[in-house]
Amino acid sequence: MSLAKKGEGKVSPNPMVGAVLAKNETIIAQGYHRYFGGPHAEVETIEKAKAKAKGATLYVSLEPCSHWGKTPPCTQKIIKAGIKKVIAATLDPNPVNSGKGIEELQKGGIETEVGILKEEAEKVNEAFLKFMKRRIPFVIVKAAASLDGKIATYKGESKWITNEKSRRLAHRLRDRVDAILVGVNTIIRDDPSLLPPFKKNSARIVLDSSLRIPLKARILQDQDKADTFVFTTLWSDKDKLLQLEKKGIKVAIMGEEDGKVGLEEVLKKLGELEIMNLLVEGGGEVIGSFFEKRSVDKIFLFLAPRIIGGRGALTWVEGKGVDFLKETPFIEINSVKKMGGDFLLEGHVR
Amino acid sequence: MSLAKKGEGKVSPNPMVGAVLAKNETIIAQGYHRYFGGPHAEVETIEKAKAKAKGATLYVSLEPCSHWGKTPPCTQKIIKAGIKKVIAATLDPNPVNSGKGIEELQKGGIETEVGILKEEAEKVNEAFLKFMKRRIPFVIVKAAASLDGKIATYKGESKWITNEKSRRLAHRLRDRVDAILVGVNTIIRDDPSLLPPFKKNSARIVLDSSLRIPLKARILQDQDKADTFVFTTLWSDKDKLLQLEKKGIKVAIMGEEDGKVGLEEVLKKLGELEIMNLLVEGGGEVIGSFFEKRSVDKIFLFLAPRIIGGRGALTWVEGKGVDFLKETPFIEINSVKKMGGDFLLEGHVR
Repeated sequence: MSLAKKGEGKVSPNPMVGAVLAKNETIIAQGYHRYFGGPHAEVETIEKAKAKAKGATLYVSLEPCSHWGKTPPCTQKIIKAGIKKVIAATLDPNPVNSGKGIEELQKGGIETEVGILKEEAEKVNEAFLKFMKRRIPFVIVKAAASLDGKIATYKGESKWITNEKSRRLAHRLRDRVDAILVGVNTIIRDDPSLLPPFKKNSARIVLDSSLRIPLKARILQDQDKADTFVFTTLWSDKDKLLQLEKKGIKVAIMGEEDGKVGLEEVLKKLGELEIMNLLVEGGGEVIGSFFEKRSVDKIFLFLAPRIIGGRGALTWVEGKGVDFLKETPFIEINSVKKMGGDFLLEGHVR
Repeated sequence: MSLAKKGEGKVSPNPMVGAVLAKNETIIAQGYHRYFGGPHAEVETIEKAKAKAKGATLYVSLEPCSHWGKTPPCTQKIIKAGIKKVIAATLDPNPVNSGKGIEELQKGGIETEVGILKEEAEKVNEAFLKFMKRRIPFVIVKAAASLDGKIATYKGESKWITNEKSRRLAHRLRDRVDAILVGVNTIIRDDPSLLPPFKKNSARIVLDSSLRIPLKARILQDQDKADTFVFTTLWSDKDKLLQLEKKGIKVAIMGEEDGKVGLEEVLKKLGELEIMNLLVEGGGEVIGSFFEKRSVDKIFLFLAPRIIGGRGALTWVEGKGVDFLKETPFIEINSVKKMGGDFLLEGHVR
């Protein structure tokens, strides 16, 4: 699984896959899927092992593919290499492939076994699993707040609530995803560039129902580094729309919901754009809408040990909120980490 | 120190004190200050040891007293018992006594040593230390909130956000303090009795600037179990005031500040009432005022792993809030405990 994870942020919308070839309990070769369009983990491993692959056992975190995609099917490569047995952690959730890879290997005379470390393998590829089943992104919410949930003082000061260590890690989360999304209020208030520290091909997305985005916003610059998509509604100013398009910004008109850009349509659209991992960075209104639509899969919550207070101060989850406590989304906390004086709570939404 | 802590919630406004008598590295007797007005730890220990006390060393968490209070001075008892050496963790912060106990022991021919485990001893008696220096209570804020800081849904539902384990511990905090304070909105919304589970002589306090408290509120009943004080302003309804007093409720008129009961005066008044430990249970407005006045010493924050959301939902720290981030109170987190699925953050305000 740790081999598979090496591909994080580079293979989507492909899954992360790791493979190990072993004979007589000795590892002959190992590999992983390094980047989208590049050789699959199995192929890389077999090519490393060369003739030694004959008679060996292949351990792989996901069922080998049997179809032609960006690369030829792995199953044929495995059969040709003379591999004796394939042990896969999970079946491929992609309906095009699921179970067919194993079937084809068996036809080729190879022993197969499926399900070892299944849970762990599914966790590594949770975004891929969701994307294959529903064709919408896996949504990660990132927020930095005080102990009383605030993301700014009532006067609007928000820089910085958390410490440098937290902010650095928060920044690096951008490298792990395909797109970063914020509401236009965050652009107006904080003017972030939303560029990841290293990743080259990420998308930046703004929800802006009436095109209030300032033309000088940093997110509208550097289109060579990362594309910017502005999602708006039919009611927005057409001149502004043309000005944005002239700058190379991709503007998409979405259906409206309660005067805002409809989230379900946004998620579908992002799925069409092959965005498998989405990082929602705020503000409170946008995060609130995602929770209301039950569209959040995971949270990274950085908590600074300070008290901002104030009825007028924004919290990290605004919007309408739940009517009754029985409707609240529950977070299954996976870890609480100390980040200097801050805390990072990481959890899945149930 | 663990001996001293056994007196928690029972000795105030006295300090918690533990004592151990030892000879040749063997413990002869130990004792602690059990309840306000009862024998001091040193006296209890010496009386247990009887004749064996002669020539022994007395370890005590606080300097022995040299003055007549509810009981005779401990120093005389120590000298008479023929004790050889006294090792005290800290000097008494009470200006009536500080240093004088040690002086008197030395005059009586007893060896003395001060300062061993000083920090630990000061922590045990942090409330006593503050009370002796400033004559106002040590203020503990207790709150139960969702991960986004909310204490109710926007519709006002607040029962229950945290789990049973958290609520049981939160309830037991009342046994450790001398008084429990809430704002009148909490009475109107939740109608708590504010009775501790076991402690018999605690006070219940409501801040109610215009006497909106319903006469049927649970906190106004059972005055035989715990006294209720309502702090109000000059502008409150005089008829209502008389009605409350007829029920045996103690009503005090306080100075006004921004239309509310002035907190500094409240704290002074509580000091006069010998309330050394105060538990502030809410709601958000009252907790916000305490933070604004920099009057909070310690927090117990129970966080439930759920998201309530909503601009209209109350957070556990409301009020005006800080203008700028550099003004925020910082919390020195002492511990983060898992309470089933919930978390309890315990910390001191710096």
